[in-house]
Amino acid sequence: MTVLSPSAEERLQTVLSRLRPRLENQISTATSVLEEHSHGEAMDAARLPAAVIFAESTEDVSAVLKECHIARVPVVAFGAGTSVEGHVTPPEHAISLDLSRMTTIVELNAEDLDCRVQAGLTRQSLNTQIRDTGLFFPVDPGGEATLGGMCATRASGTAAVRYGTMKENVLGLTVVLATGEIIRTGGRVRKSSTGYDLTSLFIGSEGTLGIITEVQLRLHGRPDTLSAAICQFENLHDAIQTAMEIIQCGIPINRVELMDSMQMEASIRFSKLEGLRPLTTLFFEFAGAPAAVQEQVTATEELALANNGLGFAWAESAEDRARLWKARHDAFWAAKAIEPTARVISTDCIVPISRLGELIEGVSQDIAASGLKAPLLGHVGDGNFHTLIITEHSPEGYERALELDRKIVGRALALDGSCSGEHGVGMGKLEFLATEHGEGALSVMRALKSTMDPHHILNPGKLLPNGPVYRG
Amino acid sequence: MTVLSPSAEERLQTVLSRLRPRLENQISTATSVLEEHSHGEAMDAARLPAAVIFAESTEDVSAVLKECHIARVPVVAFGAGTSVEGHVTPPEHAISLDLSRMTTIVELNAEDLDCRVQAGLTRQSLNTQIRDTGLFFPVDPGGEATLGGMCATRASGTAAVRYGTMKENVLGLTVVLATGEIIRTGGRVRKSSTGYDLTSLFIGSEGTLGIITEVQLRLHGRPDTLSAAICQFENLHDAIQTAMEIIQCGIPINRVELMDSMQMEASIRFSKLEGLRPLTTLFFEFAGAPAAVQEQVTATEELALANNGLGFAWAESAEDRARLWKARHDAFWAAKAIEPTARVISTDCIVPISRLGELIEGVSQDIAASGLKAPLLGHVGDGNFHTLIITEHSPEGYERALELDRKIVGRALALDGSCSGEHGVGMGKLEFLATEHGEGALSVMRALKSTMDPHHILNPGKLLPNGPVYRG
Repeated sequence: MTVLSPSAEERLQTVLSRLRPRLENQISTATSVLEEHSHGEAMDAARLPAAVIFAESTEDVSAVLKECHIARVPVVAFGAGTSVEGHVTPPEHAISLDLSRMTTIVELNAEDLDCRVQAGLTRQSLNTQIRDTGLFFPVDPGGEATLGGMCATRASGTAAVRYGTMKENVLGLTVVLATGEIIRTGGRVRKSSTGYDLTSLFIGSEGTLGIITEVQLRLHGRPDTLSAAICQFENLHDAIQTAMEIIQCGIPINRVELMDSMQMEASIRFSKLEGLRPLTTLFFEFAGAPAAVQEQVTATEELALANNGLGFAWAESAEDRARLWKARHDAFWAAKAIEPTARVISTDCIVPISRLGELIEGVSQDIAASGLKAPLLGHVGDGNFHTLIITEHSPEGYERALELDRKIVGRALALDGSCSGEHGVGMGKLEFLATEHGEGALSVMRALKSTMDPHHILNPGKLLPNGPVYRG
Repeated sequence: MTVLSPSAEERLQTVLSRLRPRLENQISTATSVLEEHSHGEAMDAARLPAAVIFAESTEDVSAVLKECHIARVPVVAFGAGTSVEGHVTPPEHAISLDLSRMTTIVELNAEDLDCRVQAGLTRQSLNTQIRDTGLFFPVDPGGEATLGGMCATRASGTAAVRYGTMKENVLGLTVVLATGEIIRTGGRVRKSSTGYDLTSLFIGSEGTLGIITEVQLRLHGRPDTLSAAICQFENLHDAIQTAMEIIQCGIPINRVELMDSMQMEASIRFSKLEGLRPLTTLFFEFAGAPAAVQEQVTATEELALANNGLGFAWAESAEDRARLWKARHDAFWAAKAIEPTARVISTDCIVPISRLGELIEGVSQDIAASGLKAPLLGHVGDGNFHTLIITEHSPEGYERALELDRKIVGRALALDGSCSGEHGVGMGKLEFLATEHGEGALSVMRALKSTMDPHHILNPGKLLPNGPVYRG
């Protein structure tokens, strides 16, 4: 463990002693708690925070930031810890500010299809609690993430092709600024043309510009009819072509997901999918009013068959549908089961959909050249895909996986893509930002960061390559 | 005309003389040109710019801003001049930078449903030029606005209920910063989680943070089937209730527009709408695949009739449809024809849809109390509406209209609304921003402004109340 320099240690102790009267029972330095807050998922880098504070209100967050701002103690917000790019790994001498106790639905406006929630509520819990209203929140990253964390990383998932990402589904926020000041952004209206779009500035800012404590969300009506099917293909190209044509024809499909043959082989075994072959597969979901769904199904089936699809298999019952989508969501675990002693690293990149075929062809060559196994799956309607790189549990294994990931990302960027469709930058994607955004845009981002957080206490070392670094 | 202080005049002349070698034939000080650039539509405030420069490239814009930044000469970007809130009225001693010659479609990626255009292209021209691809750009403010201007004001219109606003339909931008530096934001991908959302920061920034010179737009496939109808109601409440239920039921309606009885009376006369009565009316448009459209129509008709709608009248042919929507888009001129010598001021506010009935009830009382005529119409599916205040051509008449507008906006803000759904802030809505956003959010906006434009040369006096003001 790093020995704290007296000065950083002293400042930290000052902050904690000033906060104790207010937050006595919400501060922990127990080793198990520190360890839980030392990392998210998947990134190797872990570091113990100096203390964990469990916020129970926006005012708690404000009190913590106010002291940390004065004393220049870094703070990283922590929700469910499901980040896969190192977002929640604390910088040195930092406080991990845990918002997972802030789980209240502050208001529910069913007639306007919106609600306001505290940032620590998970999407699953929200959807369970509002089920009786006939409404739901559609953004669905794989993990049981908090809605605040989903805002901070601009999360999306399988339903983004129909409903958009967090960017399109958040109407407003409560944010605590670095100084401890509490502001509200946006509001409840569907659209507004008044003032800078601060809501969008905080969405995706990864806790580096302020800490989100409340979120005003758009909700959607549960569709009358849901229908799911899969179609298998002899080759990847035909499957991608089908997905691309679905989007180009404007079929308002609910989800369209791809798994390649290696992933399917793993998922058939892991999820006991009967009657399927280890071939490239598209998973479809259709939703809406009954005739509209039927029309979407017919149009999609025609496109798939014209692209040599091997026929549609329907998930007729709700149970079958749930089983199918569970298999999709368990893809990571299925890949992990290929070599149970190995580790699996999920990459994430996105390109314009017409470049997806070319990209995946190149990626397949890179995977073959690497000697690693790496099944592939993705939100193919958005052009977004993940490679699940299977590698050994060792620094060398990790480095080999990263080397492959660099090649994949390099190809995506060369095809007008982005190095992350949904996982975010954290520490894992820092090295690609200059290529993706250019130095001009990056210097604007750095200037905004310095304006919003002049002492660089908010999650330093994340999102901005060569950005302002906290210096104790 | 204001006498320029020697120092401001000198600096301006320095800028012009330094720019002349590059832009000789693009600089005008002809009175007619200055007058054209002295105001947008509707606001009283007009002021001649000191010169108009017609940019023909991003590099031209960069050259102008570079000199203006050094010399501290204010610049206002000018597109089609359709702003109704004073956005393009020049500050004192300013250059009006006209982008209307920048009309190229830089790239068209039909297979990915996106394109890149120069900022001076109008949406109508874009849609005419890409008609053969089967694609279109859906955001439709009333006027023949430029796409750059639509970005700058976060424009929307009748199709926002289905397709969203500029915020949801812009993937990336080229922006010239105050210093003249050229940056690109966003890209071509559908979604990305990498870095601060600079694109959204510039969308709606009204030329105060940078000047947008190119726009990457999302395009959409033209629907197979379009169908339009109207339904009349004996009272406003039933019409609003119908619109609200359409949204709550998740019917993916293409447009749903409201006109009150006074507006209908004017439009029946102006647009020669036969067979209609001067009653509150909803205009509907349905789009999509044939069965889906039929299903939407049936569901909507049921809701309308259950709310005492007086029956659907269908626009069967494409000509009838065009005539109906032309009547809707000519509402302003119909209102103007009520008293041809009077002037019409279009207000703009928005509330959560469930508050719309209460709001409009209050607004009706305010209108009655004002003694003015003020027909009412709106994008009712979004909760966004306009009052067309008819008043006399005099400073007193203008003041009476503003007094009424203040009451309307006050009511909207008290009902969780916004003072502008789509027209923007400009100078016209400055007084409401503190109430709407709170001082906390406003100080963040001011800090961002000072960071991005330290000399406050970019459209000073707009968007931010008590914001940094250019001081010559």
